[in-house]
Amino acid sequence: MRTIAYRNILRAEAASIDTLGRLGVATVHEAQRRTGLMKPYMRPIQSGVSIAGSAVTALMHPGDNWMIHVAVEMIRPGDVLVVALTSDCTDGLFGDLLATSLKARGARGLIIEGGVRDVSVLNEMGFPVWSRAVSAQGAVKETVGAVNVPVVCAGASVRPGDVVVADDDGVVVVARPAAAQIARKAAEREALEAGKREKLASGVLGVDMYDMRPGLAAKGLVYSDQVVDWYNGAEEA
Amino acid sequence: MRTIAYRNILRAEAASIDTLGRLGVATVHEAQRRTGLMKPYMRPIQSGVSIAGSAVTALMHPGDNWMIHVAVEMIRPGDVLVVALTSDCTDGLFGDLLATSLKARGARGLIIEGGVRDVSVLNEMGFPVWSRAVSAQGAVKETVGAVNVPVVCAGASVRPGDVVVADDDGVVVVARPAAAQIARKAAEREALEAGKREKLASGVLGVDMYDMRPGLAAKGLVYSDQVVDWYNGAEEA
Amino acid sequence: MRTIAYRNILRAEAASIDTLGRLGVATVHEAQRRTGLMKPYMRPIQSGVSIAGSAVTALMHPGDNWMIHVAVEMIRPGDVLVVALTSDCTDGLFGDLLATSLKARGARGLIIEGGVRDVSVLNEMGFPVWSRAVSAQGAVKETVGAVNVPVVCAGASVRPGDVVVADDDGVVVVARPAAAQIARKAAEREALEAGKREKLASGVLGVDMYDMRPGLAAKGLVYSDQVVDWYNGAEEA
Amino acid sequence: MRTIAYRNILRAEAASIDTLGRLGVATVHEAQRRTGLMKPYMRPIQSGVSIAGSAVTALMHPGDNWMIHVAVEMIRPGDVLVVALTSDCTDGLFGDLLATSLKARGARGLIIEGGVRDVSVLNEMGFPVWSRAVSAQGAVKETVGAVNVPVVCAGASVRPGDVVVADDDGVVVVARPAAAQIARKAAEREALEAGKREKLASGVLGVDMYDMRPGLAAKGLVYSDQVVDWYNGAEEA
Amino acid sequence: MRTIAYRNILRAEAASIDTLGRLGVATVHEAQRRTGLMKPYMRPIQSGVSIAGSAVTALMHPGDNWMIHVAVEMIRPGDVLVVALTSDCTDGLFGDLLATSLKARGARGLIIEGGVRDVSVLNEMGFPVWSRAVSAQGAVKETVGAVNVPVVCAGASVRPGDVVVADDDGVVVVARPAAAQIARKAAEREALEAGKREKLASGVLGVDMYDMRPGLAAKGLVYSDQVVDWYNGAEEA
Amino acid sequence: MRTIAYRNILRAEAASIDTLGRLGVATVHEAQRRTGLMKPYMRPIQSGVSIAGSAVTALMHPGDNWMIHVAVEMIRPGDVLVVALTSDCTDGLFGDLLATSLKARGARGLIIEGGVRDVSVLNEMGFPVWSRAVSAQGAVKETVGAVNVPVVCAGASVRPGDVVVADDDGVVVVARPAAAQIARKAAEREALEAGKREKLASGVLGVDMYDMRPGLAAKGLVYSDQVVDWYNGAEEA
Repeated sequence: MRTIAYRNILRAEAASIDTLGRLGVATVHEAQRRTGLMKPYMRPIQSGVSIAGSAVTALMHPGDNWMIHVAVEMIRPGDVLVVALTSDCTDGLFGDLLATSLKARGARGLIIEGGVRDVSVLNEMGFPVWSRAVSAQGAVKETVGAVNVPVVCAGASVRPGDVVVADDDGVVVVARPAAAQIARKAAEREALEAGKREKLASGVLGVDMYDMRPGLAAKGLVYSDQVVDWYNGAEEA
Repeated sequence: MRTIAYRNILRAEAASIDTLGRLGVATVHEAQRRTGLMKPYMRPIQSGVSIAGSAVTALMHPGDNWMIHVAVEMIRPGDVLVVALTSDCTDGLFGDLLATSLKARGARGLIIEGGVRDVSVLNEMGFPVWSRAVSAQGAVKETVGAVNVPVVCAGASVRPGDVVVADDDGVVVVARPAAAQIARKAAEREALEAGKREKLASGVLGVDMYDMRPGLAAKGLVYSDQVVDWYNGAEEA
Repeated sequence: MRTIAYRNILRAEAASIDTLGRLGVATVHEAQRRTGLMKPYMRPIQSGVSIAGSAVTALMHPGDNWMIHVAVEMIRPGDVLVVALTSDCTDGLFGDLLATSLKARGARGLIIEGGVRDVSVLNEMGFPVWSRAVSAQGAVKETVGAVNVPVVCAGASVRPGDVVVADDDGVVVVARPAAAQIARKAAEREALEAGKREKLASGVLGVDMYDMRPGLAAKGLVYSDQVVDWYNGAEEA
Repeated sequence: MRTIAYRNILRAEAASIDTLGRLGVATVHEAQRRTGLMKPYMRPIQSGVSIAGSAVTALMHPGDNWMIHVAVEMIRPGDVLVVALTSDCTDGLFGDLLATSLKARGARGLIIEGGVRDVSVLNEMGFPVWSRAVSAQGAVKETVGAVNVPVVCAGASVRPGDVVVADDDGVVVVARPAAAQIARKAAEREALEAGKREKLASGVLGVDMYDMRPGLAAKGLVYSDQVVDWYNGAEEA
Repeated sequence: MRTIAYRNILRAEAASIDTLGRLGVATVHEAQRRTGLMKPYMRPIQSGVSIAGSAVTALMHPGDNWMIHVAVEMIRPGDVLVVALTSDCTDGLFGDLLATSLKARGARGLIIEGGVRDVSVLNEMGFPVWSRAVSAQGAVKETVGAVNVPVVCAGASVRPGDVVVADDDGVVVVARPAAAQIARKAAEREALEAGKREKLASGVLGVDMYDMRPGLAAKGLVYSDQVVDWYNGAEEA
Repeated sequence: MRTIAYRNILRAEAASIDTLGRLGVATVHEAQRRTGLMKPYMRPIQSGVSIAGSAVTALMHPGDNWMIHVAVEMIRPGDVLVVALTSDCTDGLFGDLLATSLKARGARGLIIEGGVRDVSVLNEMGFPVWSRAVSAQGAVKETVGAVNVPVVCAGASVRPGDVVVADDDGVVVVARPAAAQIARKAAEREALEAGKREKLASGVLGVDMYDMRPGLAAKGLVYSDQVVDWYNGAEEA
């Protein structure tokens, strides 16, 4: 990779970021036609926490967290640090000292396709993290990488300044130029869902509410009222 | 698979189901001679919750949750929806809207060899789920499958109407015709264990309580009082 | 393996053990030059709990927990049971009855490269466990193994009497003869970190506090003030 | 599980078995509407070999291969031994001595959701195996299981006498009562494919041959002749 | 994702592609500063085969291979089809009929972050494939995706027309605009290595040839001539 | 870890090493009571090759292969290089240049709990490798580790000078002081097996040859001559 650190990046406007964070990963992911989702091995170390912010990216060598130190300086309040690695690694590349530093800079959280440690302290500090692993294994500071360059993190393409949304369902990335539009679409989607939820809670069936019966029939689904005793000679599916 | 949905299934009697649920997965699994357990990658999204109910089954294509919509209609109060897939998939095939619908029908929970999303909301709703993954990735509704046919879910054979028991230890399936008998055996086992627990708590050793010493000797176990310093030249095991 | 059970082992002194436990896995791991860490698939079934104690070891065949019963007798107050297997197995080799027994003997917890069950009860009992899996699958008692012999558990070499430290970050092993020295080094390290944390919290950057800038430059890191629009023709990293 | 060994099983007729074996896993799997496939972690230890035969099943405890010895006696020429485990295990539960025995009985191969060893010798002997792992780790003979009972092996339900087909693509199970019908359907499917292959080889496009264009358009696929330079400001998908 | 298929893409010049293919994945990966490598779970179904070509990309839903049919039409001689999925899937999304079609169009091979089937036939045909899995599980044709849009495949960012190089070591992607430059750098690197290989073969040590001794000493490596008997009381590392 | 390289190690005598290599991993593993086996994720890059030699060990940081360069100097003819890592890493830490160097020193092969690259060339050179992965990802040379210290590699404890045996079944480690004794036991075991193989080939059943019937009966195995039709109402196991 190029060994460069960009100090300045373009960010989406705060209003869009806040809307995206409020609506959450599943809704945002749907609103942008199911793109930008990180792989499901990215799990939160806390539960019930939801964040959104502008991505400051770091690209590092496995077992080496030097670039996180460099990236801290580029963080502005409201940012989320996104750390990608050149190959899979579960080492604890981030701990409470780096979290203290990130928090002091106003970072909203960390997304790392690697491991973290000091997780009890991180949880006490209220610093949110989504990671691939938890491990006490420490890192060296020997190999330089890059900061604020485009990366692939957990299967998702992330460019500096993209909006990153993370909650208990995972992590999704919204391209910066599309943030306002996706925020709008996601809000519309959310509004629609409220009505549906009420109907379903009242007992209306999804197959009726979504008018699925003709489609199911056309695709060949047959309903049967037969009471099969699968323990007495019925043929399997 | 056959594209069929059976509306009516045979269920075990409520008393057996309740007993099985009260005794929990580990005890029930032992009571039926260690059969019917799903693979341990099936994990709860909540903790401390235990359920039991009659299995309504759905068999779906990866990335497609249409059959869950069809299965909802077959749910009666006390049922548990068991979703199997034709191949491995971690997509979020189930979320808060489907949970709302299942809850309105009286379902006690969901077992799915796939992913779920909206897990914070599911936890707030108190809707219990055991799944293979958490993922925000949405599903299509294009391919029909089957409802209330025998399936293999996470390595366990499940027939419609079988009793499914799930708690923090995992998920176990009890064949419907055997439910009453297994409930009785599990209750007996539980009763026996209470006495054992008390003895062990008082300091009685398991090797004595279970009279294991002759068996251990017969199999060749040797006890040694030698104090080995493994850091000074001792031979390894 | 040899089928032998050693009744007596050498242990580190209590003061060192307590210091190591108080300082935690990440700090101890650093203090002993990043050795002795178990693989990160060893996860706690509880959260926020930290223990340290002398290792009583058991080596077992997959699916067979007989040696845990034998090992219980060797436990003295303050010990931690470390269970290794001759091959990978996720079965629930340990449950609430064994925990009752271990607790009655004064054990501080269990480390097992296998599965455990009855996890709700274990949590209610406050008995700490680090394991590879949770599974209700029960074990047989047919094959004898060894107790208090050197083992490899989750990638770490453990000798009887070694100090085992476990918390939310994982599990680390300290060689018995080195326990006092490592406890001292870990305490020194901890003292140093407090000052760093304060500085970082005040906004001082790690790249400055650790004087990293010359090293980064020497290794070829270039800083750029250019504002790149990655969505308009910029070259990727 | 029940500790029983059934000596006699019903088998499908040889002609159907041979047809199924000749047509191979992918075609048979399609012919029975994509059911009965084992999970793709079942891999051959050889390459280019295809077998089909009647399933003699064994259900064993992890780390214990006693039931294979029992099952050997039930093998008749043309059978395939299918070994399932009560929990995941990669141990080498099968080696050259057992293969010699199976071969002497006329077995066509082994399907095992566990590990095998002596793989060089097995290959020299020309004894085909599909397994989950290769491992030299040996097994004990302590725990009895069952022979010729229904099992779930690698996610597929197998009943004694079912037809098992295995080749480089994996392993598929055909229910005994359906064997003749599936053989017929598979042969029909094969015949159809020959014509298609010829057309495609001549350069006819699948989208035309299968008349997919109207369907693609109806689902919203748009074709564009624009030449996008994705390195100069184009919007991502 | 957007449901669009671009018919025309920009390609790198043939000479660069051929050079990159001749030099192989490891050398090309080094030449572009260790970027662009797909994750190592991408494995060839053949051995000893090396290809390079221009990427035609397809983005598909799990379990659905419709977009491969669409992509075939965009293939020109010398291209390589790169298939990405919106989520992990091991289904056999590609088989001998599609390979026949791709071959008729002049494709050099397939890279797919999913499964393939008919692998014996593919090998007989000499059609090279790198995939995540082998599975007979068939696909549906229900959900449209995109062709010739940027994708992330196995952790690597691929744009239509990028050069894809694949051999026994894996798969690497070279950005189209950089192809000529990377080909040149890779050729230079290759030339350098020949001399090194000869020296090393003659017995010259790498630590001398690369002049590593001062660096090792500076970093604290100590050489010892002591003959330690690790079985007699030596302290571990 | 300590940053030290021991130049001189004790080795087992050549005759024992050769015997162990001739008998192979499975037999040796049995002969030493099923200890010392590496985890089955260690796979050969070639097939049909068997080696044995004295272990020269290296302990490295993930993504860094500097210590291999240091270790090469310690290799004497007949040695096998065993590389352990402080944490899991699949990077290609070894390639054709290092193999050239090792071969020039007389090394018999490489065992590495990491990745390798240039596998086609390694196979052409006839240099045998057992590794965890194949990957083109290159390594840095920044962090010093240790050479010829005890390591844990793939779950097995290895001390410098231990005998390492590797073939298609995996990798096993024999403690140096025990090499002669284990070679003798393994040879005895081999001799015994020849007779068994002949008997089994002639059709004698293992249950008879090993006199298993009384044991099976004592453990509760029941034989049944009933012909069950599992498709007509039979109860499952």
